Amino acid sequence: MPHPEPTPPMLPVAEALAIVLGQIAPLAGESVSLPDAIGRVLAAAVVASDPLPPFAASVKDGYAVVASDGPGDYRIVGEATAGHVPNFVIRPGEVAYITTGAPMPTGADAVVMVEESELLPLQAGAPRVRIHTGVKPGADVRPIGYDVTAGETVLPAGIRLGPAEIGVIATVGRAQVQVHRQPVVAVLSTGDELADLQRPAGPGQIRDSNRYALAAAVRAVGANVVDLGIAPDDAGMLEEYVLRGLNVADVLLTSGGVSMGDRDYMKPLFRKLGEVHFERLWMKPGKPMTFATAEVAGRRRLIFGLPGNPVSSLVTFYLLGVPALRKLAGARDPHWHRVQATLAQPLALDGYRPEYHRAMLRWSQELHGGLGGVLATSTGNQASSRILSLRSANGLLELPHGEGVLPAGATVTALLIGEL
Amino acid sequence: MPHPEPTPPMLPVAEALAIVLGQIAPLAGESVSLPDAIGRVLAAAVVASDPLPPFAASVKDGYAVVASDGPGDYRIVGEATAGHVPNFVIRPGEVAYITTGAPMPTGADAVVMVEESELLPLQAGAPRVRIHTGVKPGADVRPIGYDVTAGETVLPAGIRLGPAEIGVIATVGRAQVQVHRQPVVAVLSTGDELADLQRPAGPGQIRDSNRYALAAAVRAVGANVVDLGIAPDDAGMLEEYVLRGLNVADVLLTSGGVSMGDRDYMKPLFRKLGEVHFERLWMKPGKPMTFATAEVAGRRRLIFGLPGNPVSSLVTFYLLGVPALRKLAGARDPHWHRVQATLAQPLALDGYRPEYHRAMLRWSQELHGGLGGVLATSTGNQASSRILSLRSANGLLELPHGEGVLPAGATVTALLIGEL
Repeated sequence: MPHPEPTPPMLPVAEALAIVLGQIAPLAGESVSLPDAIGRVLAAAVVASDPLPPFAASVKDGYAVVASDGPGDYRIVGEATAGHVPNFVIRPGEVAYITTGAPMPTGADAVVMVEESELLPLQAGAPRVRIHTGVKPGADVRPIGYDVTAGETVLPAGIRLGPAEIGVIATVGRAQVQVHRQPVVAVLSTGDELADLQRPAGPGQIRDSNRYALAAAVRAVGANVVDLGIAPDDAGMLEEYVLRGLNVADVLLTSGGVSMGDRDYMKPLFRKLGEVHFERLWMKPGKPMTFATAEVAGRRRLIFGLPGNPVSSLVTFYLLGVPALRKLAGARDPHWHRVQATLAQPLALDGYRPEYHRAMLRWSQELHGGLGGVLATSTGNQASSRILSLRSANGLLELPHGEGVLPAGATVTALLIGEL
Repeated sequence: MPHPEPTPPMLPVAEALAIVLGQIAPLAGESVSLPDAIGRVLAAAVVASDPLPPFAASVKDGYAVVASDGPGDYRIVGEATAGHVPNFVIRPGEVAYITTGAPMPTGADAVVMVEESELLPLQAGAPRVRIHTGVKPGADVRPIGYDVTAGETVLPAGIRLGPAEIGVIATVGRAQVQVHRQPVVAVLSTGDELADLQRPAGPGQIRDSNRYALAAAVRAVGANVVDLGIAPDDAGMLEEYVLRGLNVADVLLTSGGVSMGDRDYMKPLFRKLGEVHFERLWMKPGKPMTFATAEVAGRRRLIFGLPGNPVSSLVTFYLLGVPALRKLAGARDPHWHRVQATLAQPLALDGYRPEYHRAMLRWSQELHGGLGGVLATSTGNQASSRILSLRSANGLLELPHGEGVLPAGATVTALLIGEL
């Protein structure tokens, strides 16, 4: 039977996040093959060893010419095609047919595109072409190093690799790339009331949804998941599950067991295994949330003891866990981006705590007199048990604590947790 | 030697996209396990078979009481913990200790939180507690079906599954879910000038970057990649490579070989194998782009003959290929979202073609007198060979064709191709 613990202080979310990020150094670099590097953060700059293009190349299909020759009829002495080095030279009075991307033959200094030429009827001797237009030296020629010079840093360390960056790395000929390791995240649910999806739910039980939602959120940021299953409300068993997680993972996410009840074994366990940095957040939803660190096998592990309510656990993971995973994976700025959003409807404030209100954000061309802006529509009933309040939410509105109601049309800041 | 073909018409991008999407029906549904459903689109609505919670449950740690009893000293007749059905009933004058999420004992109709109570010194008989406050019936009790009612559609067909939606599906007890199949996309580069990353580049060759960038872009939208490698400039070999792709994939992406040169074998091949719908886009970069369809093994395959230039191929894939893959994967709105963006610097217009200008978009609190808005900074030199112009680009500015220069501060629409 309960004796309430002394209530720990409630920490503003920004301070809590600073504490979490202060415990983290980016994980070491590893070499991965280029196709596997998508979404990863570069651990070392990528420098071009050769210029691009490595030879002067034609930008068009047409004729390689000596620019000073000007318009007129010319003898075609060869054909320069992409991928092949011409085995002839061009002298004044001569031209060569050339295709896009082909190396310029020695002696030619410009290209006349095919639309400005006319093949002449074949007579004895070499074929001839009429060139209709004069061009300047260098016309439609991509000189050596035009796109990338030798020694140029094409990508700095710290950049996140999307499709274009993958293309840049291929362009400079790298098949392997140094990127930060992605964190391994163990996910554990706790509580006798939870039934796994693989079994029928017993009387008094509900489905465990947190583990599935958290694992999906971990995968969505590119990290790797270890599923620890559901631990029962038993101190010894819990310790076993938690140690298993700390042995295999950089980060342990637990949900449940961190509120004030006498069945909450998590906090004493975290204190036993490591250091507890904070226990309560000054926010709605998700007040009870423990952050701890533990040294295991010579490495610092992060422990997020998330609340049991589905909304609270996912929202607190978004606010503190996602930036933590991003920093571990090497991101230079691990924070969520903020936008200003216009409320589509009035929203009541909480008198005691700032609220992260789940909302659908979309661009509206009509806002601000046609300048456009972000319109925020609430996902409805924000009860912290009601995971439907996160359905289709791509934003968390940062509502201040206070009296009364924010009217429709008011501007609030919002964290963009999904695509706009 | 060349005879220019009659020039096919240049199609506005919006019309081209309508033609592409008009050829597509979403792929059939398949059953996948819940953790694998992240990012997929639901092919059938998810309906709850049971109410949630399935029993009346306490929202707090505290005492289950008969509300009409009011404040006073009461006998504690039992303990109701989460996951266990109480084996006692509560009569007026009695209470039970209860933890968050535990089923309410029969007879109790409200919960008094533990902070409003005080355990009394143990005397002979049952333990007793002093309740300090009166509560209304239903206080801190989550009734049956409060979050989800039986038969409720918790997720409609067509919704894309993020972490919250995965959590919702777990909540209603589904281990498997019906989602649209993801397309298989074969990626082929063409041209004798291209060297693979695994071999040294020969004289006159450059690195093949398109295949890596396109494969990464395909993976980024969740589709599956088949890498066909590099086909040489030989009509027979090209047909072999293309047929291999059409046999295994829903979509074939080729790059190179679609401009006007006489070495361009792609368009005749596409005409031979299926139907060519358009050949040129009215845009910059990426004018030459062939879209074709072919019936292979009783199914319609899509063929995108992308330009060879790295920027052109990736930009045209973003504009037409990504919406196509999204529609195949079941998305109800496959289009890119548009925002209005403010130019950070002046940008010259192209006199003849609308331009998709690569830019970095970020939210700026200072724009529009403090209302905030999206600021667009050019990635610099927009030469279509220069893949560095796509580095860090998260937006494509839609610049109209026209004379002169758009000044800094001007508003343009932008496609959001990355995170804001």
